[in-house]
Amino acid sequence: DPNLKVFSLNSNFDLAQEIAAAIGVELGKCSVTSFSDGEVHINIEESIRGCDVYVIQSTSQPVNENLMELLIMIDALKRASAKTINIVMPYYGYARQDRKARAREPITAKLVANLLETAGAHRVITLDLHAPQIQGFFDILIDHLVAVPILADHFKEKDLSDIVIVSPDHGGVTRARKMADRLKAPIAIIDKRRPRPNVAEVMNIVGNIEGKTAILIDDIIDTAGTITLAANALVENGAKAVYACCTHPVLSGPAIERIQNSTIKELVVTNSIALSEDKKIDKIVGLSVAPLIAEAIIRVHEEQSVSTLFD
Amino acid sequence: DPNLKVFSLNSNFDLAQEIAAAIGVELGKCSVTSFSDGEVHINIEESIRGCDVYVIQSTSQPVNENLMELLIMIDALKRASAKTINIVMPYYGYARQDRKARAREPITAKLVANLLETAGAHRVITLDLHAPQIQGFFDILIDHLVAVPILADHFKEKDLSDIVIVSPDHGGVTRARKMADRLKAPIAIIDKRRPRPNVAEVMNIVGNIEGKTAILIDDIIDTAGTITLAANALVENGAKAVYACCTHPVLSGPAIERIQNSTIKELVVTNSIALSEDKKIDKIVGLSVAPLIAEAIIRVHEEQSVSTLFD
Ligand SMILES: Nc1ncnc2c1ncn2[C@@H]1O[C@H](COP(=O)(O)O)[C@@H](O)[C@H]1O
Ligand SMILES: Nc1ncnc2c1ncn2[C@@H]1O[C@H](COP(=O)(O)O)[C@@H](O)[C@H]1O
Repeated sequence: DPNLKVFSLNSNFDLAQEIAAAIGVELGKCSVTSFSDGEVHINIEESIRGCDVYVIQSTSQPVNENLMELLIMIDALKRASAKTINIVMPYYGYARQDRKARAREPITAKLVANLLETAGAHRVITLDLHAPQIQGFFDILIDHLVAVPILADHFKEKDLSDIVIVSPDHGGVTRARKMADRLKAPIAIIDKRRPRPNVAEVMNIVGNIEGKTAILIDDIIDTAGTITLAANALVENGAKAVYACCTHPVLSGPAIERIQNSTIKELVVTNSIALSEDKKIDKIVGLSVAPLIAEAIIRVHEEQSVSTLFD
Repeated sequence: DPNLKVFSLNSNFDLAQEIAAAIGVELGKCSVTSFSDGEVHINIEESIRGCDVYVIQSTSQPVNENLMELLIMIDALKRASAKTINIVMPYYGYARQDRKARAREPITAKLVANLLETAGAHRVITLDLHAPQIQGFFDILIDHLVAVPILADHFKEKDLSDIVIVSPDHGGVTRARKMADRLKAPIAIIDKRRPRPNVAEVMNIVGNIEGKTAILIDDIIDTAGTITLAANALVENGAKAVYACCTHPVLSGPAIERIQNSTIKELVVTNSIALSEDKKIDKIVGLSVAPLIAEAIIRVHEEQSVSTLFD
């Protein structure tokens, strides 16, 4: 369909190419560079008049740069008469700022939703939001994909015996449950507790992990503090081996060093965030979400080509 | 007035302190930092409920960082029940992307206006917009200050004789005219022209500059290509000395080197953009816009304290 156009911005070009290939289109021609003073300069180099445009961009590091690229691209597409502007954000930056945990805090995840709508986005396709409630921050359509099946399939192929799926905190139990269903395994939870203020946290494990192969699952691994401490606690409490997986490998600051030095045998991640060269270590295995996203784009586009978006 | 609060973000802290001092208030307490992965983290550390808040932030380099800081701050202030949120943007980044010069270009200056309004800004105070038309991009109130009097006063004090005010291009003639009125001087214009495609530009000078002291004036000096070529052309054509001035010293890329090596005797700039240490060279003289902005804030605040904004 000549009316389906896929553009990549700068966050995740390899993923975008894989997605385009899976759909069977070429990536749209555009140059996304900076002026000498750092202002983003976008030049769309082919007509997109009347087209359904899909823009692939994760708002991963550098998040403000990547977000502004995206907003400016949306503005350019809108003014170039795109029929619909669909944003594919495999990783939704600022998702952890999704509520006022304290007085006078921003809710930046909501701000980002408003900015995307203001710029002119018609629809957002995203993956494993830190909180599914963020879907409600949008008045436009949002498609929420999940990577659990992709992660689960990887471990299925390994044919590990006697496994237990472990959530590194209370917030992730639902995700662990979903993974466990797919692998027909029990779950356990790391129950962190600070006995008194200014005293180190105690890692209590709820569930039976002794002698088992533990698979830790989280949505985001950022500085890797939580996941590596959890892995060590599991080993100390008798786990036979510890694997870990997540959808979004943010891996900032000390993350790589911590993972390298931890008891984690293998960390499985997706390419929702592109790994820079210095983060490509042997312990980290990457899985592609390109087929999942390509399928979502095809499905969305079939809907759109029979009617306009909001009828 | 305890209901008047001035906050500084990270672009231009010294200017913000000068402004606060000129108004006679302390800067509001807030911490504006980054998480490990580069996401902006804002913490307003005092109550601003019911207050008229002024936020000082230039969207200068790093522009996307500074703009996102500003948008997130506006979101936080809104959710903390500020009565009015007034943005003081001495330098308005992306102002040069203010029209579609070619097909499929964004109009980022308009996007920025929309983003500020969406975040929750009630009013914008800015200085020497690249094009005054940008005022029309806003549906909220915008106060547009000009720095020409400050620049002119500096040259008045020098007591130079036989001066001519020179615009480095056609776009800046109105600005040169205003400066010339204040200094009771004639104007000249550098009339660049490309005789044929792929042939070097010819610098033709319209007006009499021979034996005179030329003062070049522009709004923005970015890579300093235009201004240094103009200065050299003036000297070649018989100017006795060349001074230059601008409101916004963007000074990116080769700017400092070009200025250092040029025939410009002195470059006079304002602190609408903070100069990093490596840009503080002897040839560059800085003037403060703090008194101008402080006065604007006081005037705006007097309006606001007698009534609410939009009545
Ligand atoms: N980029 C970030 N890096 C680290 N922590 C963050 C980030 N964004 C938000 N947070 C904090 O993470 C917490 C929310 O995470 P969670 O409780 O897992 O939903 C809040 O306390 C936030 O202040
Ligand atoms: N940050 C920037 N640095 C250099 N050139 C820019 C920048 N932003 C916009 N422009 C270009 O500057 C021109 C507008 O400047 P002007 O003609 O002086 O209004 C347009 O051709 C823009 O593409």
